[in-house]
Amino acid sequence: MSDAFSSLLAPLSVALVGASDDPTRIGGRPLRYLRESGFKGQVLPVNPKRETVQGLPAYSSIAALPAIPDTAILAVPSHLTRQAVEECAQAGVKSAIVFSAGFAETGTDGARLQADMVAIARSRGMRLLGPNCLGVFNPSVGYFGTFSVVLDNQLIAPGPVGIVSQSGAYGAHIAHLARKRGLGISQWVTTGNECDIDVAETLDWMVRQPETNVIMAYAEGVRDRDAFIGALERARKAEKAIIFMKTGRSDVGAEAAASHTASLAGSDAVFDAVLRQYGVYRASTTAEQLDVAYACASGIYPPSNRTGIFTMSGGFGIQLADDAEAAGLDVAPMPDAAQDKLREMLPYSSPRNPVDATAQVVSDMDMLTSYVRAMITEGGYDIFTAILGTGPSSKNFADPLRKALMAAMDGQEGKIRGLTMSAPDEVVRQYEKDGFLVYEDGSALAGALGALVWLRQGFDLNRDGAPVAPGARLELPEGPLSEADAKAILARAGLDFPGERLVPLGEDVGEAASRIGFPVVLKICSPDIAHKTEVGGVAVNLRDADAARKAAAEILHRAAEHAPGARLDGILVAPMAPEGVETIAGVMQDPVLGPVVMFGLGGIFVEVLKDVTFRAAPFDEAEAMRMIREIRGHAMLEGVRGAPPSDIEALARMLSNLSRFAAAHADRIESIDLNPVRVLPRGQGVVPLDALIVLKEEATDDRH
Amino acid sequence: MSDAFSSLLAPLSVALVGASDDPTRIGGRPLRYLRESGFKGQVLPVNPKRETVQGLPAYSSIAALPAIPDTAILAVPSHLTRQAVEECAQAGVKSAIVFSAGFAETGTDGARLQADMVAIARSRGMRLLGPNCLGVFNPSVGYFGTFSVVLDNQLIAPGPVGIVSQSGAYGAHIAHLARKRGLGISQWVTTGNECDIDVAETLDWMVRQPETNVIMAYAEGVRDRDAFIGALERARKAEKAIIFMKTGRSDVGAEAAASHTASLAGSDAVFDAVLRQYGVYRASTTAEQLDVAYACASGIYPPSNRTGIFTMSGGFGIQLADDAEAAGLDVAPMPDAAQDKLREMLPYSSPRNPVDATAQVVSDMDMLTSYVRAMITEGGYDIFTAILGTGPSSKNFADPLRKALMAAMDGQEGKIRGLTMSAPDEVVRQYEKDGFLVYEDGSALAGALGALVWLRQGFDLNRDGAPVAPGARLELPEGPLSEADAKAILARAGLDFPGERLVPLGEDVGEAASRIGFPVVLKICSPDIAHKTEVGGVAVNLRDADAARKAAAEILHRAAEHAPGARLDGILVAPMAPEGVETIAGVMQDPVLGPVVMFGLGGIFVEVLKDVTFRAAPFDEAEAMRMIREIRGHAMLEGVRGAPPSDIEALARMLSNLSRFAAAHADRIESIDLNPVRVLPRGQGVVPLDALIVLKEEATDDRH
Repeated sequence: MSDAFSSLLAPLSVALVGASDDPTRIGGRPLRYLRESGFKGQVLPVNPKRETVQGLPAYSSIAALPAIPDTAILAVPSHLTRQAVEECAQAGVKSAIVFSAGFAETGTDGARLQADMVAIARSRGMRLLGPNCLGVFNPSVGYFGTFSVVLDNQLIAPGPVGIVSQSGAYGAHIAHLARKRGLGISQWVTTGNECDIDVAETLDWMVRQPETNVIMAYAEGVRDRDAFIGALERARKAEKAIIFMKTGRSDVGAEAAASHTASLAGSDAVFDAVLRQYGVYRASTTAEQLDVAYACASGIYPPSNRTGIFTMSGGFGIQLADDAEAAGLDVAPMPDAAQDKLREMLPYSSPRNPVDATAQVVSDMDMLTSYVRAMITEGGYDIFTAILGTGPSSKNFADPLRKALMAAMDGQEGKIRGLTMSAPDEVVRQYEKDGFLVYEDGSALAGALGALVWLRQGFDLNRDGAPVAPGARLELPEGPLSEADAKAILARAGLDFPGERLVPLGEDVGEAASRIGFPVVLKICSPDIAHKTEVGGVAVNLRDADAARKAAAEILHRAAEHAPGARLDGILVAPMAPEGVETIAGVMQDPVLGPVVMFGLGGIFVEVLKDVTFRAAPFDEAEAMRMIREIRGHAMLEGVRGAPPSDIEALARMLSNLSRFAAAHADRIESIDLNPVRVLPRGQGVVPLDALIVLKEEATDDRH
Repeated sequence: MSDAFSSLLAPLSVALVGASDDPTRIGGRPLRYLRESGFKGQVLPVNPKRETVQGLPAYSSIAALPAIPDTAILAVPSHLTRQAVEECAQAGVKSAIVFSAGFAETGTDGARLQADMVAIARSRGMRLLGPNCLGVFNPSVGYFGTFSVVLDNQLIAPGPVGIVSQSGAYGAHIAHLARKRGLGISQWVTTGNECDIDVAETLDWMVRQPETNVIMAYAEGVRDRDAFIGALERARKAEKAIIFMKTGRSDVGAEAAASHTASLAGSDAVFDAVLRQYGVYRASTTAEQLDVAYACASGIYPPSNRTGIFTMSGGFGIQLADDAEAAGLDVAPMPDAAQDKLREMLPYSSPRNPVDATAQVVSDMDMLTSYVRAMITEGGYDIFTAILGTGPSSKNFADPLRKALMAAMDGQEGKIRGLTMSAPDEVVRQYEKDGFLVYEDGSALAGALGALVWLRQGFDLNRDGAPVAPGARLELPEGPLSEADAKAILARAGLDFPGERLVPLGEDVGEAASRIGFPVVLKICSPDIAHKTEVGGVAVNLRDADAARKAAAEILHRAAEHAPGARLDGILVAPMAPEGVETIAGVMQDPVLGPVVMFGLGGIFVEVLKDVTFRAAPFDEAEAMRMIREIRGHAMLEGVRGAPPSDIEALARMLSNLSRFAAAHADRIESIDLNPVRVLPRGQGVVPLDALIVLKEEATDDRH
């Protein structure tokens, strides 16, 4: 794999098929950029109609080249691409980039053309990027295999940020924004239709590159679950942040994504949850993606969210405090003694936090240094922020201020130092050189710092490292499965159910009920009746054996009436569950991300507020705990309105076991519903009151 | 009032007290800016130590001036300010700006100094701006009465945006950002400590200025409710948008705001609701404030949210569709016939909406014009957006593209035309000249367009115009009030209560219950017992007269036991209320914004989710309806889980009547609680099951 990427991004020789003498055309731009960047490798233009192209000797075909290039850039129209791929593959080229559109994104004919092209490449072990992509670049070796106009006025400098994007236009846009921000780029890959190389594989490769320490990714969906999750896990282990822009979160957006290119759009809510699960930061706007990546590029992730705010304007301080709290930062007050000390230094200052030195401090830069140093050393902040406003736009002020702050930070080099200010680029670059993160907007700064804290937590989670294994493989019967079947299977997977008994037809329900202890619940048990209440198949709160016998007879009578063909396994007798908080749990198959576990609170929380969350299976109890705490109404489980705290440990154990079972049987299970799951007070466990497992239909059944 | 502002912002003559020859000092900067701007009025430096200041003749004192200036800028330290104010006031100067800090924001002594200064100015009818402010400017007349360094490198051009800010630093910051964005400023006022002129009065004046069509405001709190709400109403009537940055939304922020300057911070949630109520757009970030003000500067507010998205990149289109939906825009699909037509023009395009023409369209600008024209005319969009990416960064491409889009928009001049693109400033300005709104970021564009739609709705609401009047003034007894008292009073204010009867002690509860009809509820009625359940003072679901008599006796027994001193009015007998949705309503006094009505859903919605909203009293039923719909769980009132829709019309009527009562008796009422209020199915009304009115203690009582 890495060989293919080496050839794609750092070739020693590259053929440009469809090379143009016109440096503004698709076949001309890559050549122009390679010449401008001083690329050291061999560039071999292929153009049967010309002797030279942009001053380089041109060759009539791949076969006519003096050497076999590592990679080829195919800048020919779609109807000529297949042949070019074939020639490259036959010559032994390791990889090729296909620029042209006109493939799978245009319909059936295009999809066929694309599939043919892939088959040809595969047969010779050649890897393909694209089609319908903008190519790649790798500034550290001066390699620019792209026709993007973003390089028209200026090339891109090397740096710590990797970019991978399904959309070429989006990839170019964020490269442009990164350049404007002074951020260098390590590698840039656009995957387009992803006929072969996709975002997941590219991510996995990029994470391994030592020069990359943060990655901006864009995707409408992913194709290969395992490769994708594997790449995310690798990134987390390497403590390299991935800042993800995933589109299709709205209904219209998801529809557009489904009709665009050939992207597989699973549920956005599931995708979102999986990014959280693996510590990937999902940006909601492009500006945020840049702001967070910029902060990550420094490579400092603070160990806590304790944030000190230094300001010379009260209003700005309040505003940044608001933004910081919204971003999950802790604007903890200075210790009282330290406040007294600061107030002694500057009598009119308000040193609580935000620490407002007022404008008086700028008249004495030594005082500023002492004041800020006292704030940092005594405040115990892992994140230091300062609001400099438009002050540094004056160069006379910018330099002394920077030096005064640097002097104050002496010995505190590992701490985040974030600034808001408005100043010319050269002033900003100077501050950045001294290790400051510079933002114009306070909410952007606070958001990025909050992201750093969140990413740090994600890295730390993965410290112990061993991935969660799927559960043991169980022998599952053929479907459909009754409630009793489902509960028996899940019990073997480690879920606890109350002492229920299935009483076969003809046996005495009253006696079984007496053994369980009153009051009891009776439920019809049939693989053919999924919704028992609708056929009158449930009776609750039965207080003695006679009542149970009578209720059982009535249930069987109604079942015969409302579901005459149903196979009846008997009557399920269960104890009445104690009081608790109603929740729901389930398993579903995401078309892309595979088996996922859903969890939510029951009743209005799920029905009105849609307050549910997801995780890709399998996951451990710690992850289940985070899942539970994500729910908006999770305070319900901590005990409100006089109720005791719920047994969320048992709930987490159940969810983790459910996930491991789901992962082990993803090939067999279509869905699982545990609704409701009653969560009892702490120490008393959880009771899934109902269980339904729907098995996948056999492939052969589908063909009937 | 407007005279004072005329003198402040467009003086014919201005004295600068404390004028400095050094153009970088506080007393030197205003003079420097006035000279650079070519200010046509008379500038009179006052400096007893110099003959000339920056080339102008200087005077030794206000008394020594050759004429009485319209206004004075006081650039002297705090301990010299009082005297300067006195001299100005005695000379008959109309207004003065006080730059210096060192007043109320520093403690008791400063507050006293500030109060003295105000008293002196008031005695002579002189108005004061500040202290602790950065002054004003008015670029249309070249008047710059400020020492802000934001003008250091470049003055500010005139334009349609007014700025008023309590914080000078923040005001300077947004002026800087506006200038960077190419936005001109009509007037700029910083109010600082607001010893006299405040944000509300400034807003009211700015709204009346014909050259101002949008205002950016910043405040930590307001002082004068009526002036503030009056200004907001005037702005809405004039269809001038106010884009408000209000700080102190977080706990730390609110604490900092309370300790800062001398701001009065009421509840942020109440302030937030009042801004919504009066159609003021509250920005959550500075970037958003700029983005929305920029869109408003064009003066076009779309009549609907139907939004067409034109793109040449599928990925960008999906992303903008996501952003548009999040901003409340309707990305409605093109009619089918129109889609066919577009597909005929460009076979590979996806013309649903987002309308993705793919990159092929740029090869033929006439085709682009025809395609976009067909999209606009047949799509029925009031908002047209196009994603141009980095394309216009090439000048060769920027011009033809702009012209092609202009040709397509021919005859559609009233429609919003929003673009996202990255290009040099001069290209952007050219597009703006042609009426395009240009954003770099799609989510910023979508957010601003959503704000325009929201502002339009606010303007339209006020069309019929007459402000809501408080209710009729009722004779209220002295407190404390029992539940029966409270219900009797609120019934006179137009609230409906079920046919309850207060049975005095010694009379027959059973007979009263029989007349009401069983089942009934009994409740102890006493002005001294606010929490009836806690003393066992409630009995529910009583099904006959004997049960009622027995329960009444028990209630009286328990009351005597648990609340021995309480005055007892009797037993309140009420019918059991029918099933419905539990809500809560109430009235409270905000320290700044006065009487406000609170509304929320009951139970976990208020207790766990804190799902409540507010309105300043009084308001009409339409506003109450908007209030009800703001609640996150409002679907509960529309009928979920098989329940019928609730009588939200009756609920709105109740809230409006409650608000009019609260407004009419703001001087007497401390708080009102209606908890719960049961909302019955549509057509059946609402039943406030309990009512509690707490009257304000008499001022004399407070002194005991």
